[in-house]
Amino acid sequence: MELWYTEQHTDSVRFSIKVKEQLYNNKSEFQQIDVFDSEEFGKFFTLDGLMMLTEKDEFIYHDMIVHIPMATNPNIKNVLVIGAGDGGTIRELTRYKTIENIDMVEIDKLVVDVCKEYFPLTASQLEDPRVNIFYEDGLKFVRTKKDKYDLIIVDSTDPFGPGEGLFTKEFYGNCFNALNEDGILVNQHESPYYPTYANAMKRAHKRIKEFFPICRVYQAHIPTYPSGHWLFGFASKKIDPLGNVEIEKWNDLGLKTKYYNTNLHKGCFALPNYVMEMLASQDE
Amino acid sequence: MELWYTEQHTDSVRFSIKVKEQLYNNKSEFQQIDVFDSEEFGKFFTLDGLMMLTEKDEFIYHDMIVHIPMATNPNIKNVLVIGAGDGGTIRELTRYKTIENIDMVEIDKLVVDVCKEYFPLTASQLEDPRVNIFYEDGLKFVRTKKDKYDLIIVDSTDPFGPGEGLFTKEFYGNCFNALNEDGILVNQHESPYYPTYANAMKRAHKRIKEFFPICRVYQAHIPTYPSGHWLFGFASKKIDPLGNVEIEKWNDLGLKTKYYNTNLHKGCFALPNYVMEMLASQDE
Repeated sequence: MELWYTEQHTDSVRFSIKVKEQLYNNKSEFQQIDVFDSEEFGKFFTLDGLMMLTEKDEFIYHDMIVHIPMATNPNIKNVLVIGAGDGGTIRELTRYKTIENIDMVEIDKLVVDVCKEYFPLTASQLEDPRVNIFYEDGLKFVRTKKDKYDLIIVDSTDPFGPGEGLFTKEFYGNCFNALNEDGILVNQHESPYYPTYANAMKRAHKRIKEFFPICRVYQAHIPTYPSGHWLFGFASKKIDPLGNVEIEKWNDLGLKTKYYNTNLHKGCFALPNYVMEMLASQDE
Repeated sequence: MELWYTEQHTDSVRFSIKVKEQLYNNKSEFQQIDVFDSEEFGKFFTLDGLMMLTEKDEFIYHDMIVHIPMATNPNIKNVLVIGAGDGGTIRELTRYKTIENIDMVEIDKLVVDVCKEYFPLTASQLEDPRVNIFYEDGLKFVRTKKDKYDLIIVDSTDPFGPGEGLFTKEFYGNCFNALNEDGILVNQHESPYYPTYANAMKRAHKRIKEFFPICRVYQAHIPTYPSGHWLFGFASKKIDPLGNVEIEKWNDLGLKTKYYNTNLHKGCFALPNYVMEMLASQDE
């Protein structure tokens, strides 16, 4: 008997992975959590049936959500991470000795507990003394913070389910206020290819633009996410990731990465025309 | 009853598309040809069960295989296209008034006939007076040509089946000889993500490097190909696509494109570290 995990990328597109065994399944207060083991991708986990990460390619997402802002502003010291229960974003951040504090706000403690057990690959640095974990709603957490963070990373699920609040105008406004004058907001920004994701992308971009003077989108190849064409949003109060910043200095840090490099840093902001047109459109 | 087209991207990964109906199926002298209609992708066709193109996203592949070399050298006048039976590459080439001659060598006439019937979207310019179609083996065709073409585009199937000869050392050497001193060779270059494709990519790159002094690889997001992370090879005798060439002049042509732009031209050659490491490795 063969076991297959199948995700519906749309009503008429399915992506299926042959599974060696299901290692875990449970429903938390917020969502269904499943862990599988597979030949091709190693272990992977899903929330409400949607792929979150695989051992094979988690490095792509985590490289791109962390090293782009860190290379843009090497003076980042105080970071807020929202979501990120698997720990991969924290693992990459803790590689920077210059970072002094990381507040991580994850709504679902069970995600963290499960990842600590099954994904030491990503959860390995959650005990770093600079990391403070808050098991709270990120939307509420950020409301009370003013002029505090150098960087906010929104490493959320899709805007369907518990992650929905992290794509609202209110949330982006509160992020703006929680950031100091050099502040940068990076968020996972969905995908341009299938309409459901593309609409979420367009809405997010439109709302972020209402607050942040600098507002760009960059892309990566993440084959286990719907369409494999995944976007990240980069918003900031004054620092442009392609502007008068010395990206190449990042190489002096000597960090070894499997995806990110400073050449790709410049290349990943070059978007196809059809994506730029979607981002420029004013309809919701 | 629901009809689904399913492609095995590896033994343990499947990509499935809900099909409205199968429009055509036949076995030519060379391969199995199937045409389907679908909600998400419009019409699409497969050769030996592998996705060739969909109406939804064919523009990505055809933009990237044509406009990169054409923007690199605006003086291209004489082009050889190998494969490309669907006509999409020819359609993009014929948009350049400066091109005087296009020799297209497709081994399988039935592919062209089927595409003329079902895919006017891509096959529309096959009757352009500058286009000469040869129904021959590209490997043999190129053997007898010397110092003739400004550009050779290898728009082939994967190196499993009829396309295999188009990934050999002999073929690349003959392409080198068939090109004039400014000559450029562009080929579809498989994908870095799943091992079968990555091995084909590494082999192709290693062989091309043996002949061409300039040898680069660029990437695009093509969601209906395995992993969605697709590569193209750019090889040339002396013109570097990122070197001392005035890419921006391409914009003066006024060609409207849905994927390609001159910013992306520069960005698409910036590869992730893991892909660069694969390309640098010397193992077969």
